[in-house]
Amino acid sequence: MTPLSRTQAFHTALADGREIVYFDRAPGVDRGAQDERDLPTARTTAQVRWNPLFGDYVGIASHRQDRTYKPPADLCPLCPSRDGKQTEVPADDYEVVVFENRFPSFSLNSADVVPRVDESPFRSAPGAGRCEVVCFTSDHDRPFSQLSVEHARTVVDAWGDRTTALSVFDSIDYVFCFENRGEEIGVTLGHPHGQIYGYPFVPPRFSTFGEALEHHREHHDRCLQCELLEAECADGSRIVVASDHWVAYVPFAARWPYEVRLAPRRHVPDLPALTDDERDDLAATYLTVLKAFDGLFDTPTPYISGWQQAPVRQYRDAWHLAAEVFTIRRAPGKLKYLAGSESGAGVWVNDVQPEAAAARLRGDA
Amino acid sequence: MTPLSRTQAFHTALADGREIVYFDRAPGVDRGAQDERDLPTARTTAQVRWNPLFGDYVGIASHRQDRTYKPPADLCPLCPSRDGKQTEVPADDYEVVVFENRFPSFSLNSADVVPRVDESPFRSAPGAGRCEVVCFTSDHDRPFSQLSVEHARTVVDAWGDRTTALSVFDSIDYVFCFENRGEEIGVTLGHPHGQIYGYPFVPPRFSTFGEALEHHREHHDRCLQCELLEAECADGSRIVVASDHWVAYVPFAARWPYEVRLAPRRHVPDLPALTDDERDDLAATYLTVLKAFDGLFDTPTPYISGWQQAPVRQYRDAWHLAAEVFTIRRAPGKLKYLAGSESGAGVWVNDVQPEAAAARLRGDA
Repeated sequence: MTPLSRTQAFHTALADGREIVYFDRAPGVDRGAQDERDLPTARTTAQVRWNPLFGDYVGIASHRQDRTYKPPADLCPLCPSRDGKQTEVPADDYEVVVFENRFPSFSLNSADVVPRVDESPFRSAPGAGRCEVVCFTSDHDRPFSQLSVEHARTVVDAWGDRTTALSVFDSIDYVFCFENRGEEIGVTLGHPHGQIYGYPFVPPRFSTFGEALEHHREHHDRCLQCELLEAECADGSRIVVASDHWVAYVPFAARWPYEVRLAPRRHVPDLPALTDDERDDLAATYLTVLKAFDGLFDTPTPYISGWQQAPVRQYRDAWHLAAEVFTIRRAPGKLKYLAGSESGAGVWVNDVQPEAAAARLRGDA
Repeated sequence: MTPLSRTQAFHTALADGREIVYFDRAPGVDRGAQDERDLPTARTTAQVRWNPLFGDYVGIASHRQDRTYKPPADLCPLCPSRDGKQTEVPADDYEVVVFENRFPSFSLNSADVVPRVDESPFRSAPGAGRCEVVCFTSDHDRPFSQLSVEHARTVVDAWGDRTTALSVFDSIDYVFCFENRGEEIGVTLGHPHGQIYGYPFVPPRFSTFGEALEHHREHHDRCLQCELLEAECADGSRIVVASDHWVAYVPFAARWPYEVRLAPRRHVPDLPALTDDERDDLAATYLTVLKAFDGLFDTPTPYISGWQQAPVRQYRDAWHLAAEVFTIRRAPGKLKYLAGSESGAGVWVNDVQPEAAAARLRGDA
């Protein structure tokens, strides 16, 4: 585990053996509550299959078809266990808690039950990764954007700690911390939560990014993301917020109607590498970005937020950490769909001028 | 134009100068009806911007925000002009008609009005491509799957003809014929129609495919898609339909709950290269595939269908034509959303086993 300078981590297990980790600002909180449920042992048959035509892996997880789907709020599995109701979290309250997903897309124990196939042109392997759920708060109705800066900092510490923890497994090549928020994004549980995927390969978007960073460094002897941060700050038209340690801007070639890239000014590979000051500043700046998204429309903005960290074993020196936050809502009641051009050809067409998006996110327009 | 062996093409112009082309089986149909509307000249400011971090172009088309959005059926702009109502199609009936999109993502005339920017790291260019609408039938309520084989063959000829026509423009590098069907996919017009995008660059999915084909040919001296067709036919478990000239199968590493790859047995680069027999067979086989999709659920299946043709100037010898048809519906009332893993990391997780999907599409299960 990463040494945590201000957050306590308490590790225990759920009734079916899944790991659960509580993260608390306050020292010495008792997190020893036992999971009293009679759960069958978690069984998953996650598989990754290789597509030689497009050079990518696809996760096949047919056990997920029956996962929990939009339960009523009083049956929320992510709330604390209270009043005799037993949820995924045995404690009767928590600040931030992380546990293994009961319906994972990838699972380390797949390695024991899913065979490896290599009969050219068909190649598949166990989906030996890990999927975790991060509950941002015990308050079912408080979105991330409404957390205090101190509470958000605990989430940052949890992300960093889990990144270090998952990087230890041999079969995990990439740790992706992300949040899907809103039914329009397909979220099936309303409780404010995110996810952490430990992928058993480097996702294609991130190998593309890593290649671009290494190529640029080789030819220009500096980091392309550092260069972009400077250029964006000098231009100014796409800056959403700039703090001591962080810059949030709408990319010049944004794919989504409203999209923000949030990067540290310092060249660091991942969340664990951030200093205390950078983490505090991140908590505040990230909240500013999320509030900007929630200020765009009359109803809560659906969004996806994901951390682009260095892969566990590749591109680490060249990598520059960043988060990407974007919404698929292009106007009130209108969504940006990924149709033929995006899903079929991989070409995004954005109907919102990035400079206009930045102005709206800043509150100028 | 490609010589059409059995379909007549009639070229004319709409009131604002946009090109319109009628395709008819019957020879000598009078398609001279004039567009009487008082339309302002089409003005578009399509731009493509380069994202150096991910090595791709994004189309920026802010003029599209106000495009026609789910009009009532009696105001459908894709129906023929009848009873005093003037639509995008001046004729009072048609078999298949193609015209330039009034709200295009890319437009050749952008070259005259959108400047080219090259101030590193910011690079952009006019979106000098072309976007066309293909009306599959004048019957507002007849989906593609319900067309006759002969009528579907006229669509095939129209696709082939427009591919040849758009390939002539210097700034167009790729011709993509596709259909988005269903509100769940974001379709804003209910009339059965598809689109043709002439992109001013090769879309990233297709350069990946082209590289894979060339790499395989170099190292194994044969076509990877030819090899996959043989392997799929030998295995059989993922075959949906196999005809004299075409094979439709669910890919071993399918990304979508129900996904079909439809490829000719013969190694050809694009639709214009197909023989008469291959086109007739394609019309019949493609209808079988669409009917299989529409048989999956009690309500019409939303789907995306797109043709992977050789780029205009690259990978032509190595390329093997294919169509990809897929739905985002994973179960009745449940959609596959592109959330954090797909949109953020580029990793698809599929909840439906490809072999089970093929069995359902064949009607076995």
